[in-house]
Amino acid sequence: MKAKYAMGLDYGTNSCRSVIVNLDSGEELASHVFCYPSGEMGVLTDRHDPNLARQHPADYLAGLEEIIKRAIGKAREADAAFSPEMIVGVGVDTTGSTPLPVDREAQALALSREFKDNLDACAWLWKDHTSHAEAAEITAKARATRPQYMAVCGGTYSSEWFWAKIWHCLRMAPEVYKAAHSFVELCDWIPAVLTGCRDPLRLRRSVCAAGHKAMFSREWGGLPDEEFLDSLDPALSELRGRLYGEAYTSDAAVGTVCAEWAERTGLSAGTVVAVGALDAHMGAVGAGCSEGVLVKILGTSACDLMVAGNGSRISAIPGVCGIVDGSVLPGYYGIEAGQAAVGDLFLWFVNNFAPQSLGTTNDEKFAALNARAALLRPGESGLLALDWNNGNRCLLEDPRLSGMLLGQTLRTTAAEVYRALVEATAFGAKMITGRVIEHGVKVRQVTACGGLASKSPLLMQIYADVLGVPLEVSSSDQTCALGSAMFGAAAAGHFPDMASAQSKLCREGGKVYIPDPAGAAVYSELFGLYRQLHDGFGLQGSAGGMGNVMKALIAIRERERQAG
Amino acid sequence: MKAKYAMGLDYGTNSCRSVIVNLDSGEELASHVFCYPSGEMGVLTDRHDPNLARQHPADYLAGLEEIIKRAIGKAREADAAFSPEMIVGVGVDTTGSTPLPVDREAQALALSREFKDNLDACAWLWKDHTSHAEAAEITAKARATRPQYMAVCGGTYSSEWFWAKIWHCLRMAPEVYKAAHSFVELCDWIPAVLTGCRDPLRLRRSVCAAGHKAMFSREWGGLPDEEFLDSLDPALSELRGRLYGEAYTSDAAVGTVCAEWAERTGLSAGTVVAVGALDAHMGAVGAGCSEGVLVKILGTSACDLMVAGNGSRISAIPGVCGIVDGSVLPGYYGIEAGQAAVGDLFLWFVNNFAPQSLGTTNDEKFAALNARAALLRPGESGLLALDWNNGNRCLLEDPRLSGMLLGQTLRTTAAEVYRALVEATAFGAKMITGRVIEHGVKVRQVTACGGLASKSPLLMQIYADVLGVPLEVSSSDQTCALGSAMFGAAAAGHFPDMASAQSKLCREGGKVYIPDPAGAAVYSELFGLYRQLHDGFGLQGSAGGMGNVMKALIAIRERERQAG
Repeated sequence: MKAKYAMGLDYGTNSCRSVIVNLDSGEELASHVFCYPSGEMGVLTDRHDPNLARQHPADYLAGLEEIIKRAIGKAREADAAFSPEMIVGVGVDTTGSTPLPVDREAQALALSREFKDNLDACAWLWKDHTSHAEAAEITAKARATRPQYMAVCGGTYSSEWFWAKIWHCLRMAPEVYKAAHSFVELCDWIPAVLTGCRDPLRLRRSVCAAGHKAMFSREWGGLPDEEFLDSLDPALSELRGRLYGEAYTSDAAVGTVCAEWAERTGLSAGTVVAVGALDAHMGAVGAGCSEGVLVKILGTSACDLMVAGNGSRISAIPGVCGIVDGSVLPGYYGIEAGQAAVGDLFLWFVNNFAPQSLGTTNDEKFAALNARAALLRPGESGLLALDWNNGNRCLLEDPRLSGMLLGQTLRTTAAEVYRALVEATAFGAKMITGRVIEHGVKVRQVTACGGLASKSPLLMQIYADVLGVPLEVSSSDQTCALGSAMFGAAAAGHFPDMASAQSKLCREGGKVYIPDPAGAAVYSELFGLYRQLHDGFGLQGSAGGMGNVMKALIAIRERERQAG
Repeated sequence: MKAKYAMGLDYGTNSCRSVIVNLDSGEELASHVFCYPSGEMGVLTDRHDPNLARQHPADYLAGLEEIIKRAIGKAREADAAFSPEMIVGVGVDTTGSTPLPVDREAQALALSREFKDNLDACAWLWKDHTSHAEAAEITAKARATRPQYMAVCGGTYSSEWFWAKIWHCLRMAPEVYKAAHSFVELCDWIPAVLTGCRDPLRLRRSVCAAGHKAMFSREWGGLPDEEFLDSLDPALSELRGRLYGEAYTSDAAVGTVCAEWAERTGLSAGTVVAVGALDAHMGAVGAGCSEGVLVKILGTSACDLMVAGNGSRISAIPGVCGIVDGSVLPGYYGIEAGQAAVGDLFLWFVNNFAPQSLGTTNDEKFAALNARAALLRPGESGLLALDWNNGNRCLLEDPRLSGMLLGQTLRTTAAEVYRALVEATAFGAKMITGRVIEHGVKVRQVTACGGLASKSPLLMQIYADVLGVPLEVSSSDQTCALGSAMFGAAAAGHFPDMASAQSKLCREGGKVYIPDPAGAAVYSELFGLYRQLHDGFGLQGSAGGMGNVMKALIAIRERERQAG
């Protein structure tokens, strides 16, 4: 019997990568990475506006050709019996919300001569925050007239999302908006390119990207209604008909690889291409996300993904960013939450406050801080921190909160502060899991992936102790590409459902951190104090009475910086 | 006309120093420093008990001989016309409360063969905290039965003070207590030695040291009454009769230099020796303390000294450590307050959190931090700190409070944090001056002395802006020795009163920092927020509702350190 494979394509912020996975063993036969050539590590910026972050679609296409072709070449080298016909399906995940304006033929505007140097005609990368004003207007309008739209995105629409970006494009670059026949998420555009789709209105859209980010739900008939869009801007309601009325989970196929891209890449024409999805969501599937298993992606920030059965009637969880039917696994509500600074918080501390006695490079300093912090018992530093140096993304949903450290003496060391910061992010994580559990989501295990999960045993043990559940390190370090390969295989009919794909392809054997009862008991006490600070400083008009302090400091800061 | 001089002797924590001052010009003719040879920089410690800090009286005597003899030698070298007869009087200031047990002949017990190696028979240095339990018992008992005793020391008796130390000696070293005929403050013992006084009951005691530290006041007939002492321990009331019934200001003479010490030092027998006093108090006089001029001694910690005319009826200021008739200047209430960590706070930060990019030595790092912090506008960092890393000494009087930093982002720098710590100590200073002003004390100018006053223009400008009054750097860097020389001269009748001595000898011309109206306005806003945090975290059961947080963290910390 011939081996069968699936290919996963994973479009990140700075590079894209392919992986060819054996569908029996789950092993990776070959992979290839392509770094986007444009801008700063692939990101187009504007020195006059730190909020701007765009990408050129030409980078995506150059990458698409190279990562497929080179992975196939490497696969042949690794196994002489390999041939591209053995690839049953291709899955695609990308960053998002990363919409790009396209013409009538689903061609990206920035690929045309007219718009090739126009930043507004490029892809609007997830972390582009130029549309914060529009996001605030959408939030205000929806709260007043369409509270159901806000209920599934935690109460606040983000400047990182679809409608805010498109509206900002309409206001700031009307020539681009006018030339755009439609707007397409990157995770929908790559499958469209591969399958040769020439009509943006026939392109199959991902429910994962459509979900809360484009305020799409079957409950209200798809995208936001025309009356609502009209109240924002008539040009937006006029666009609505050139977007989409349906959205799909990624176990569905978009089509098959077209002749042109078969030629360019070496894939067989006719290979099934699955509906795309966002990277974190497919990564969660690759890491084994299922009912009761929360997947936590620990990087510069943290992303939490969970699922709840459709029977569980989970509709809204206050302060939790996104709840979308099918966004992670078909047949389940996908629930998405996160923290705005995790690895970034530790890097900030090491960059700015680690003395030379700990080492000269950041690696040495991190190693020394981890080693010293690991010698401390929970609670023995007397320190407690709030992890809000980049604001609070979930529960409080307030980017204008700030960090805090409390309990310092004249003997407090850098290692103690470092540990307090790690603990603060763990307490922040517990606030989120606590909230989703209160609303009926089961969490019996946490699987962590991302750089910090494998690099920091100290952090993992602290998280296990604080969260009070076993914490497993995902055994794959490419869960996003693995997840997209799994969807590629499922869309091709190789697996009857995603649970079968996961049981076949998600590897066992990642290290498991078990909560230490003594540590967990101390952290339970400290968490009570964290919660007191969280509510006191994070909620306006709460019993804690400190809700004004951080905002007042920011107001003074902004005024004085402008005056200077 | 022959020149006249006075000699000041200043006994610090690590060394003692002499200065010979010209009584016409105020100029210093000669001076000499002697570093105590015993222990760690003069302090005897016990590695089993970090609270213990003692000094050996043999160090005091060796120093006394050397600093007088060598200063006289240097004076002869500096001016051939000089002779010791030109010294009209000698003044003495020392640390305190630093009591030492003495025998029937006022000889320090530790100078006898039997007790020479007994730490409990040595001087109990001001910063010895072994008697914290006794201090707490005295506070509780006095609050219940003698509230008037607590009213003048801010509400809480300190483990640094006379009765707590003596009581701890009684409990822990009964053989020393039994052998002691009396206990004498160091500032009273040095003048007794110089004048050859052989009877501890005839020795003239300083009202400055007796004041709140020994709970002495004419209002209640001197030392605490026997019934009260009996309620602590009958052995303490039994001691009362072997202490003193009167106490003196330092413009009074103790006697004249005795033959033995004239011989040992080269001073003329018959030279007047003034009643001693505590170093900060004499330093304040040397720096020009008078009604309306607050003297701030800025070192590792901060000490604030003020005077109020006897007619001003200032009796008690809640949270302010000490109010004693005559403790600073005769005829005025001396008011003493302070902050537990100032220079220590900055040193802690530099030692533990200054990255190598700022320099390699502490001097380089301080220079870089000061230079970068000076470029910031008030308020532009968005940070706010509480200066309680060593607890709060005044107003809240709670050593179990801790530090706090608030407002951090992922861009916050070490220089911004450093400036926030400096500002926090300035806000702490303003809390104190605000309280004393509310209670009728006039403050129209602040004169700063101590290392930080001359070393840190940034700190001085911030203090001027925060306090809202002109801040002058004392032009003498030896204000304590100068002040004691002034009292030596006054006791010899050379000046009719201390105001005359000050107008003659306190030099003008120290740099003056004028409040900048724009900075002062921003700091006024920030101070409102500081006050909110101060009350919220410092007061139990206040509106802020955070009064439990720091205490709970310390309780957890202590439990976990013991368990570890």
